[in-house]
Amino acid sequence: MEKLQRNERIAMLMKILSDHPNQLFTLNFFSERFHCAKSTLSEDVDILKTILEKFKMGAIQTVAGAAGGVKYLPVFDKEDVKQTVERLCNILSDSNRILSGGFLYMTDIIYKPDIVDSIGRIFAGYFMEKELDYVVTVETKGIPIAMMTARYLNVPLVIARRDSKVTEGSSVNINYVSASTRRIQTMSLSRRAVGKNSKVLFVDDFMKGGGTAQGIIELMKEFESTVEGIAVLISTKEPAEKNVKEYISLIVLNEVNEHKKIVNLKPGIILE
Amino acid sequence: MEKLQRNERIAMLMKILSDHPNQLFTLNFFSERFHCAKSTLSEDVDILKTILEKFKMGAIQTVAGAAGGVKYLPVFDKEDVKQTVERLCNILSDSNRILSGGFLYMTDIIYKPDIVDSIGRIFAGYFMEKELDYVVTVETKGIPIAMMTARYLNVPLVIARRDSKVTEGSSVNINYVSASTRRIQTMSLSRRAVGKNSKVLFVDDFMKGGGTAQGIIELMKEFESTVEGIAVLISTKEPAEKNVKEYISLIVLNEVNEHKKIVNLKPGIILE
Repeated sequence: MEKLQRNERIAMLMKILSDHPNQLFTLNFFSERFHCAKSTLSEDVDILKTILEKFKMGAIQTVAGAAGGVKYLPVFDKEDVKQTVERLCNILSDSNRILSGGFLYMTDIIYKPDIVDSIGRIFAGYFMEKELDYVVTVETKGIPIAMMTARYLNVPLVIARRDSKVTEGSSVNINYVSASTRRIQTMSLSRRAVGKNSKVLFVDDFMKGGGTAQGIIELMKEFESTVEGIAVLISTKEPAEKNVKEYISLIVLNEVNEHKKIVNLKPGIILE
Repeated sequence: MEKLQRNERIAMLMKILSDHPNQLFTLNFFSERFHCAKSTLSEDVDILKTILEKFKMGAIQTVAGAAGGVKYLPVFDKEDVKQTVERLCNILSDSNRILSGGFLYMTDIIYKPDIVDSIGRIFAGYFMEKELDYVVTVETKGIPIAMMTARYLNVPLVIARRDSKVTEGSSVNINYVSASTRRIQTMSLSRRAVGKNSKVLFVDDFMKGGGTAQGIIELMKEFESTVEGIAVLISTKEPAEKNVKEYISLIVLNEVNEHKKIVNLKPGIILE
């Protein structure tokens, strides 16, 4: 391949780094691929750093030393979060979303790629510095958001199941009490899924009493691992006393009034 | 914001387009953002086109006319697919993955962001021209792959559940027979999930007899919609006669021999 122009190198650098968030690439990797000196690449990287900062669309981190290189990181930006959350509050407060029983239809939102991507980027940016090993969720509706968070953190996703499955090998099963319904629930996770002494982030779409989050904390103890953070898209205002104290929630659901056809939402706790 | 340099514009163009596959952006959007003429942007776009083609990392499509603009598309490249599939075959043929009962542990693979991303990109590239409206899967293990496929196609993901849920509103439930176990299974999907006359792609991690795929075809009929493609990561060699005829599969599982500790896999049908 012939030598590349600077703007060609910069385009490909941006694509490769941005497509693999939180993944370290050596300058050798690029210098072999682009047939150029590492000093030239360092200049290219500086241009990327400046322009990403200008547009608040992430950061390039340079790691020095023999095992060093560069990586792209999503960055938690309050203004970006505010815009995303306001957009979501607008969409979700549509009274046509009210289901019988006072539930809110939100499945379309949490399965829509651009929205899921934004939420995952926000969660990953917020918890980036915790040096997490896994993102953990429970089937089913939180999986897409958890997957995108895992993508931005560049760590494996782990999905606890409601029952143990023969295709997962031996598993750890725990029982826990749903904080809102007081019913006993089960969750199951393959012994192979999480290594010892891991730090995990629990991600879900919805939290009411926090029973599931508490269940995940218990489950992780069985793997000698700890939950370092809890991130949910929506938490309910009531009960105010939840089973877990520390969590972030993009949106707080105050009330769904089926008779008055009103959905009362507000931006969540990380914007206060 | 001051005027940008060409290499800064090219970096941001690449990032924004590549972060939103199959999403059309007008040149106006960029010209306002970057404070430059549309003719200048056209030149920038041409540079991106050339370099992406050179590295076989996707394509930029220019749509002419008043509603026109540019978008980034993943491209199905046999060499890229071959490398991804060979890597996966290597990982999966590790005899430590054999579970009692002759099952293969593959959950870690289908939840790992970089692998899931590659698979989603391949599936999306293969079906890009079908102009699909949704990617459909059934809970649980296929969800991450389906999500990434949906991201690259820029269409909503739809997840059929095993039971109907109160948070999904009124739903359509169907019964179908698992082709391998002959057991009756149920799947359920919210009435709101799929619009009439939609074209969908069914994505799953694993296919044996094809009963689930057949079930999805039946389910989509209830929504007056059609399954235009079926994509699975792994299909089994036996039964050779599956319930569905047309599908793509990245890997074919010939045999898991629990006693001899052998996993016999080969690259799948789209590479033949």
